[in-house]
Amino acid sequence: MKQRIVIIGFGTVGQGFCEILLNKKEFLKKQYGLKWEIVGIADKAYGNVYNAKGIDVPFLLEEAKAKKQFSKDASKWDTLTLIKKSKADIVCELTYTDLKTGEPAYTHCKEALKSGKHVVTSNKGPAALHYRKLIKLADKYGLHFRIEGTVVAGTPILNLAAGPLAGCEITRIRGILNGTTNYMLTEMEKGMSYAEVLKVAQELGYAEADPTGDVEGYDARGKVTILANVVMDGQLDIDNIPCRGITGITSSDIHTAKEHGKRWKLIGTVEMKDGKVTGSVAPEMIDLTHPLAGVMGATNALTFTTDLLGDVTMVGPGAGRWQTGFAILNDVLTIDSAY
Amino acid sequence: MKQRIVIIGFGTVGQGFCEILLNKKEFLKKQYGLKWEIVGIADKAYGNVYNAKGIDVPFLLEEAKAKKQFSKDASKWDTLTLIKKSKADIVCELTYTDLKTGEPAYTHCKEALKSGKHVVTSNKGPAALHYRKLIKLADKYGLHFRIEGTVVAGTPILNLAAGPLAGCEITRIRGILNGTTNYMLTEMEKGMSYAEVLKVAQELGYAEADPTGDVEGYDARGKVTILANVVMDGQLDIDNIPCRGITGITSSDIHTAKEHGKRWKLIGTVEMKDGKVTGSVAPEMIDLTHPLAGVMGATNALTFTTDLLGDVTMVGPGAGRWQTGFAILNDVLTIDSAY
Repeated sequence: MKQRIVIIGFGTVGQGFCEILLNKKEFLKKQYGLKWEIVGIADKAYGNVYNAKGIDVPFLLEEAKAKKQFSKDASKWDTLTLIKKSKADIVCELTYTDLKTGEPAYTHCKEALKSGKHVVTSNKGPAALHYRKLIKLADKYGLHFRIEGTVVAGTPILNLAAGPLAGCEITRIRGILNGTTNYMLTEMEKGMSYAEVLKVAQELGYAEADPTGDVEGYDARGKVTILANVVMDGQLDIDNIPCRGITGITSSDIHTAKEHGKRWKLIGTVEMKDGKVTGSVAPEMIDLTHPLAGVMGATNALTFTTDLLGDVTMVGPGAGRWQTGFAILNDVLTIDSAY
Repeated sequence: MKQRIVIIGFGTVGQGFCEILLNKKEFLKKQYGLKWEIVGIADKAYGNVYNAKGIDVPFLLEEAKAKKQFSKDASKWDTLTLIKKSKADIVCELTYTDLKTGEPAYTHCKEALKSGKHVVTSNKGPAALHYRKLIKLADKYGLHFRIEGTVVAGTPILNLAAGPLAGCEITRIRGILNGTTNYMLTEMEKGMSYAEVLKVAQELGYAEADPTGDVEGYDARGKVTILANVVMDGQLDIDNIPCRGITGITSSDIHTAKEHGKRWKLIGTVEMKDGKVTGSVAPEMIDLTHPLAGVMGATNALTFTTDLLGDVTMVGPGAGRWQTGFAILNDVLTIDSAY
């Protein structure tokens, strides 16, 4: 069956996902039998387009890259109408994350499911704030709500936990979940001060003009919430998770750790104790022999502690154009293989 | 549906698998809906048992631990007859590996598939020597031939490659695939000579009395063959894969590597170049900044190089009672979830 896809949000991730679909069209068909058609796109900057027979993706990609309004198959439907009325099988919700309200992505996901469409998202908002409600809704209608792209998208840890680790009980998750702060700590070890390295990180595009979300640990906390509630079936409220970032780490702290054969890392932790799931984010001095200690630069990593295997660690890239695009693709393949 | 299972080979892995099934019975039912019954066991040492209604697993586990012959539900069927005639859904082939002929496991797998039963195996023989024939046979009958337990069983890399990494093209695999030699190299770095550390490894049970399979790289070569032919769809013949073990590594080599910020590791490599898959096993000096360099002791690790994600590394335990038992369980869960 051909998967008809609607894309909400045509920024880096949406464009990257479409480029992958186009570049790998033959491979995906041959290897996995995937046939697809993009039937609609909604984007705040470029406008909304819809064509039940399929839109001209290469043309629209060029328009978006030229920062032009979409000029082909323009639709009068607003985004919610497009989600509800489009003849589509899968809605990919790829708008920017709002960790306070989860909106407008939460409403997008909800309406997509209610109108009988699977949802794949890279948006941490709905996943961190409303996972339980959305998965319940998806189950009710026999649909998928898939979120691999929400947590270190380039390292498929959610699908790893759900599939290849199935059968294990995961009792603890510890991870380097934010590439920006890991890059900063790596550079501080080479001699730069916190203020200097923040400036470089901003110049490189790793950190935003307002770096609060990264350096105060809020981004990592969003991911901890998702890991706790999705992988460990917890019921954590993001605001109640203790969270300390790296703003208090000085060059002297870095030096002291080194002297003791350790290294500072911003660690997100989820733990199961006596049937209760807890989470936290804080800088920790990690022993150099631990697999997480060797993870440098913008790389992410995560250790699952399990009953049957002990520790299993995965190291890989965080988010990015291809990385998050891949996560969306992998979830689409999973949906496709189930039908 | 209840999965009726026959176990061929009741050594460490078979016993470990049964213990996991018993210990986690409620968890597996609640979490994954898995219902199971062991209906037969065949073992060279303890004899063959069969009961279509289910055998008494705890009792037989005790007998095996006491090195007694099975005294309950003893069957007159030889192993091949048990495989063919038993009313079972899944045959778990858990006998010892023979990398020269793949027998008797190859025949066991073949006959199981021919009589309509899924096969799950931890035996490297059939997987390294006859994968293509067996998967073709399985496809012909609409059955599963699953082999997660054959390569670093405690770190689910085959199922990772097939599932959560689907959509990527894997262009290279490099890994520490043998725990014994990695333990030996780790200890040599601490100051022991090759001869000394081999003796300790044998005392600890890591290395066998005849350590050839580990130290000459043959075990790693078997895994390289499986990775090449299963993950990268190659057609490698195990005997044609260049293979050098660690017997030539001296304390002086270890020291030289250290001076250059590197570390010796026995690396199995599979590469795709111009559409052709090649494999090799050899000791390599790895830069200390590479994720594989930090993997010490009997731990295994593997880096996938992919088109969309770059490098993704997985670190975890190798084989063992629970680890390989888990791999069998995970494959059984996959089969169960497909029906």
